[in-house]
Amino acid sequence: MKAPELGIEIGTFERGKRNSITDVKGVKVGHVTLIKGKGKLIPGKGPVRTGVTAILPHEGNIYKKKVLGGAFVMNGYSKPVGLIQLWELGTIETPIILTNTLSIGTAIEGLLDYILEENEDIGIKTGSVNPIVLECNDSYLNDIRGRHVKREHVVEAIKNASENFEEGAVGAGTGMSAFEFKGGIGSSSRIVEIEGKKYTVGALVLSNFGRREDLTIAGVPVGIELKDWPGRGGEGKGSIIMIIATDAPLTHRQLNRLAKRAIVGLARTGGYAYNGSGDISLAFSTANIIEHYEKEEIAIKSLPDPVLSPLFKATAEAVEEAIVNSLLEARTLDGRDNHIRYKLPEDKLIEIMEKYGRLR
Amino acid sequence: MKAPELGIEIGTFERGKRNSITDVKGVKVGHVTLIKGKGKLIPGKGPVRTGVTAILPHEGNIYKKKVLGGAFVMNGYSKPVGLIQLWELGTIETPIILTNTLSIGTAIEGLLDYILEENEDIGIKTGSVNPIVLECNDSYLNDIRGRHVKREHVVEAIKNASENFEEGAVGAGTGMSAFEFKGGIGSSSRIVEIEGKKYTVGALVLSNFGRREDLTIAGVPVGIELKDWPGRGGEGKGSIIMIIATDAPLTHRQLNRLAKRAIVGLARTGGYAYNGSGDISLAFSTANIIEHYEKEEIAIKSLPDPVLSPLFKATAEAVEEAIVNSLLEARTLDGRDNHIRYKLPEDKLIEIMEKYGRLR
Amino acid sequence: MKAPELGIEIGTFERGKRNSITDVKGVKVGHVTLIKGKGKLIPGKGPVRTGVTAILPHEGNIYKKKVLGGAFVMNGYSKPVGLIQLWELGTIETPIILTNTLSIGTAIEGLLDYILEENEDIGIKTGSVNPIVLECNDSYLNDIRGRHVKREHVVEAIKNASENFEEGAVGAGTGMSAFEFKGGIGSSSRIVEIEGKKYTVGALVLSNFGRREDLTIAGVPVGIELKDWPGRGGEGKGSIIMIIATDAPLTHRQLNRLAKRAIVGLARTGGYAYNGSGDISLAFSTANIIEHYEKEEIAIKSLPDPVLSPLFKATAEAVEEAIVNSLLEARTLDGRDNHIRYKLPEDKLIEIMEKYGRLR
Amino acid sequence: MKAPELGIEIGTFERGKRNSITDVKGVKVGHVTLIKGKGKLIPGKGPVRTGVTAILPHEGNIYKKKVLGGAFVMNGYSKPVGLIQLWELGTIETPIILTNTLSIGTAIEGLLDYILEENEDIGIKTGSVNPIVLECNDSYLNDIRGRHVKREHVVEAIKNASENFEEGAVGAGTGMSAFEFKGGIGSSSRIVEIEGKKYTVGALVLSNFGRREDLTIAGVPVGIELKDWPGRGGEGKGSIIMIIATDAPLTHRQLNRLAKRAIVGLARTGGYAYNGSGDISLAFSTANIIEHYEKEEIAIKSLPDPVLSPLFKATAEAVEEAIVNSLLEARTLDGRDNHIRYKLPEDKLIEIMEKYGRLR
Repeated sequence: MKAPELGIEIGTFERGKRNSITDVKGVKVGHVTLIKGKGKLIPGKGPVRTGVTAILPHEGNIYKKKVLGGAFVMNGYSKPVGLIQLWELGTIETPIILTNTLSIGTAIEGLLDYILEENEDIGIKTGSVNPIVLECNDSYLNDIRGRHVKREHVVEAIKNASENFEEGAVGAGTGMSAFEFKGGIGSSSRIVEIEGKKYTVGALVLSNFGRREDLTIAGVPVGIELKDWPGRGGEGKGSIIMIIATDAPLTHRQLNRLAKRAIVGLARTGGYAYNGSGDISLAFSTANIIEHYEKEEIAIKSLPDPVLSPLFKATAEAVEEAIVNSLLEARTLDGRDNHIRYKLPEDKLIEIMEKYGRLR
Repeated sequence: MKAPELGIEIGTFERGKRNSITDVKGVKVGHVTLIKGKGKLIPGKGPVRTGVTAILPHEGNIYKKKVLGGAFVMNGYSKPVGLIQLWELGTIETPIILTNTLSIGTAIEGLLDYILEENEDIGIKTGSVNPIVLECNDSYLNDIRGRHVKREHVVEAIKNASENFEEGAVGAGTGMSAFEFKGGIGSSSRIVEIEGKKYTVGALVLSNFGRREDLTIAGVPVGIELKDWPGRGGEGKGSIIMIIATDAPLTHRQLNRLAKRAIVGLARTGGYAYNGSGDISLAFSTANIIEHYEKEEIAIKSLPDPVLSPLFKATAEAVEEAIVNSLLEARTLDGRDNHIRYKLPEDKLIEIMEKYGRLR
Repeated sequence: MKAPELGIEIGTFERGKRNSITDVKGVKVGHVTLIKGKGKLIPGKGPVRTGVTAILPHEGNIYKKKVLGGAFVMNGYSKPVGLIQLWELGTIETPIILTNTLSIGTAIEGLLDYILEENEDIGIKTGSVNPIVLECNDSYLNDIRGRHVKREHVVEAIKNASENFEEGAVGAGTGMSAFEFKGGIGSSSRIVEIEGKKYTVGALVLSNFGRREDLTIAGVPVGIELKDWPGRGGEGKGSIIMIIATDAPLTHRQLNRLAKRAIVGLARTGGYAYNGSGDISLAFSTANIIEHYEKEEIAIKSLPDPVLSPLFKATAEAVEEAIVNSLLEARTLDGRDNHIRYKLPEDKLIEIMEKYGRLR
Repeated sequence: MKAPELGIEIGTFERGKRNSITDVKGVKVGHVTLIKGKGKLIPGKGPVRTGVTAILPHEGNIYKKKVLGGAFVMNGYSKPVGLIQLWELGTIETPIILTNTLSIGTAIEGLLDYILEENEDIGIKTGSVNPIVLECNDSYLNDIRGRHVKREHVVEAIKNASENFEEGAVGAGTGMSAFEFKGGIGSSSRIVEIEGKKYTVGALVLSNFGRREDLTIAGVPVGIELKDWPGRGGEGKGSIIMIIATDAPLTHRQLNRLAKRAIVGLARTGGYAYNGSGDISLAFSTANIIEHYEKEEIAIKSLPDPVLSPLFKATAEAVEEAIVNSLLEARTLDGRDNHIRYKLPEDKLIEIMEKYGRLR
């Protein structure tokens, strides 16, 4: 159950049909979830609590038909791969891969396996390719040193991609924690109307950040109310990756602006971008396709900046709710050294929301 | 009255003695407030609802004894002066001047009058000087085209500077609006303890942003509750300037990080960085002094990054409360064309906070 | 005489008809030159050796019909006004004003006088305006503390603008020095062919940088050869502003890329971006017009990035030659305290170029 | 033989003992060179012309004793790993690995193998690690799709590191091309004196860029003279990585400044940062060590900015010469599909330098 089903209202815009990033037409998400072993950490052996999530901007060959994208770094204590070229050329040319911090090398390898097979011209008749890989550190539950993600898992996650996908402790979210509860994958969407046309904004987050006391849901200090709920630990370290998709026609510059507004959503949940938290957002639009071999003048469709404010607010709302959904869709999971991350207790949450007058 | 006096709790850190940016030792603030005329706008004639605010990092010659500073641009629909050199050299060498958008030229002129008089070597024996001037657009109340700020007002604001200063509809805040209420100058501070030592973080904002429905105070949707309160208008355009001062020893890089965390406070009040809102934050530390004529190796005192998280949260809290204080300290003011900005109604606010269980 | 007329070949691309930034259709340049007094510096009294230069991207109302622009800061020891908004919104909405460092406030004032008169809606029915003002420090010759530029000079420079304009010690270049010779305004242009279409790139520089020994012309170490030529002094401090205009259809992102390539031209003349040198480049394209009140989806014309390389090289070449032309078009000028900046000696230069086999 | 031994003078500063990046005390460089097969490209089989180069900032545990670093992206058509965290935290905590574009995943993997073995606390008691991996595309000669670099090669390159190391077609430089000649690894150093103290600046480049006609050596248009020399091809695509080391005490901000000056050296050789060329520079200083577990206030040694200009020029000179040395130290090498990259012909070069009066 996501926030609205529980009667929790985040923001004021209408949601898309699935309340998910895949409400943006063409976008698909796939996971590979790796869970194995129990108990004491034996580096290299487990327990394994990790995975891979792939986000596909469209169904075609992304290298040949690139989408425009942008990104923002709220806190760069992070190891994102691919942002430098994204800022230079403005395009995304691979599926976006999420995984754990020490698996970024493997994720690149797997992503290259997929892309090189699909594009025989790379490295021979044309240049190379810019893999986009983003990460959080799941070492509170996972044997991260074991680097249990293999390159075939990345290809599998891409091939698994679908409009319908699970949230919570799945894929890259398997071992992640948020606010000292179980975190992971969450998604949400918003519909905005601009000059008579409807556009969709979808967000998908990989949540792995936050101190318990900081958790805020729809303005309610849930974390303070639950500060003595069991399962605390991990010093509140961690990170968050926020992916924004839209069908609104936006340029690279405008998508950088959109990515920045993800931070507003993050902040409203209790994200302070603490030193150890690598907070990265990335936005793309499906409205313009940039052909790899194009040489002639093109026309980039773009909404004028003065009408963008609703998209900015919708981005913040979708990210805020996606973070909350990553908690609500999670399940209790134990990991290394008997660390355990409890699911945010639903009954208790409803009680708290009611106490603060925020239950619909 | 500021938030805590009303029983409104924002954040968890202790406040400084004055709950103000001047809790950071040496920091002073001065205003010049310009109010003249009434009624219909006659461009060049009035009504005048504007002013100047000056923030002094210390009491000495700032050009000769520079402080380290940093800045962040959340939304660059703004006309800040001086950030390029701040990012290059890491230092602030003038008082920081706030005023209205069309008065930035005059503000530079006035600031130069002051600095050149104090430093006879500038432009003769040494280089030039980097004025720092930041602005918001007060044209909802003010005859901004009249450019009523004169250079002597800038010098006067600097000379007025004191540890005790007014907030609300004063100085640069005179004609500003926030959430379609009266906004302007607000301040707050926080004390943090790091490895056994206490540091102060102070914030001062010039608030001039926000749609009514977005106003959020301590998580409570005050704006939605007050959406039919009179005085709406102005399309929610506007901007915000956030100044952070601290005595914690931080480098330029770390002050850029601090400035970024101001956005967290902004977001928690309902700031979405809408297209037309120029949202700028600037942070400085008083702990290192950089001598203008120094040629020998120096040692820059710095806290290690892993201990900075409390400073990040304190920055967010101080900014969040400073914005709320800018509303609470304001007073109802009319302006051009009978536009009127009402003070956020205190009794009503208390009632709302109580309804949502957020009154101490 | 410019470089080609002297037989000095810089680069390989063809030049435009005027070998000037105004070879880009619609671009105009105007100057106001201020020269008064002689001898010992009496701050506030003179001698006056300064001025204003205005670059107009097109002949219409620039605020209502904006052009796309980009910028790059090679060394931010500079006080540029307007870049923050340029990077956010991607547009230039005023003439570009060049002047001396301590006159940026006045330049903003004058530019506002012009823009506000032309646009009665600013500050009343629409928002404010983003003035673009760039500067170098002419204090080696000029009584810079006297701030002799007045706001009417700025309006006059704009109104003077024409396709035909002087170079050298005129306008903002009046008091500027380069490589311890007389510098100032220089311009050049290049024609490139991309996929069968011809585009023009024009550069205009305000040169005020460089140590004598570093001067390099068409690869020849002219500065070392002339290191004992009289007139040295000023410690090689200074700055440079480089303006690039093109009719090639480029987005904001691509114009940022173009602006960066100006540095290649700078470097090839002996520019090392020394600490005290504020080195700023700004590029604009006349191919897309952004209407101020537009609310509907627009289409931005853009060349694909893979075909941009010739434009990058042409930018570097045009800037390199524009810097050399700023020396060649200058004339010997004395200033404060009997400082004197000699024109780069033409006969001697030809002799040197011949010695190094670089005279055509 | 490097440039000075051939009588080619680049710049005016004195060189270090080895004229190499390892003139900076503590810095070491190691290679693994992979050459196998001949003739027609069979993707996955060869021919193999690639490798790995590792640069170690000091001899100790770099993760536990970090150095300050900075970086600059001249053209982001590149896939650098690790820059985002470098810009946030200012530190380098791993050896710097150079390799081919499609091997960055493997390079991360190998670097992690090394770092994780050396630091058992990573991912268990402390956070993760930020691998720094930089690349160029060697596909003109190499079967880049074969991804022949293995993780053990990375560890081996690190363990091979020494003060004495080969240049030219070795390590990551094995398959690289510059100006349609054989490029690869080149190094050079400069000594500067600031306020009576001597500092060393060393540069190491991985050169893989440039069109033949653009090659400029000590200002001489060598590329135009050699435009008909055999071996042209590859469309002049490519990239360059420039690493700067110094023992001068500089902060992160100042090292960003230093990294930017590498571009001056690049430009002077004929680098135009063409669209397809990913041009990245990275600078570090060995003068401050940041302890991983430090929690107390530290003091960062730093030269004041006004004295940095000699370091800026020395950086440009060292990079310029390092690029030339990468050509001079290379050897003719054939690769896939009988592509051949000739060594820049030494005799011919001397003849050309003499013709242009630039032979010492």
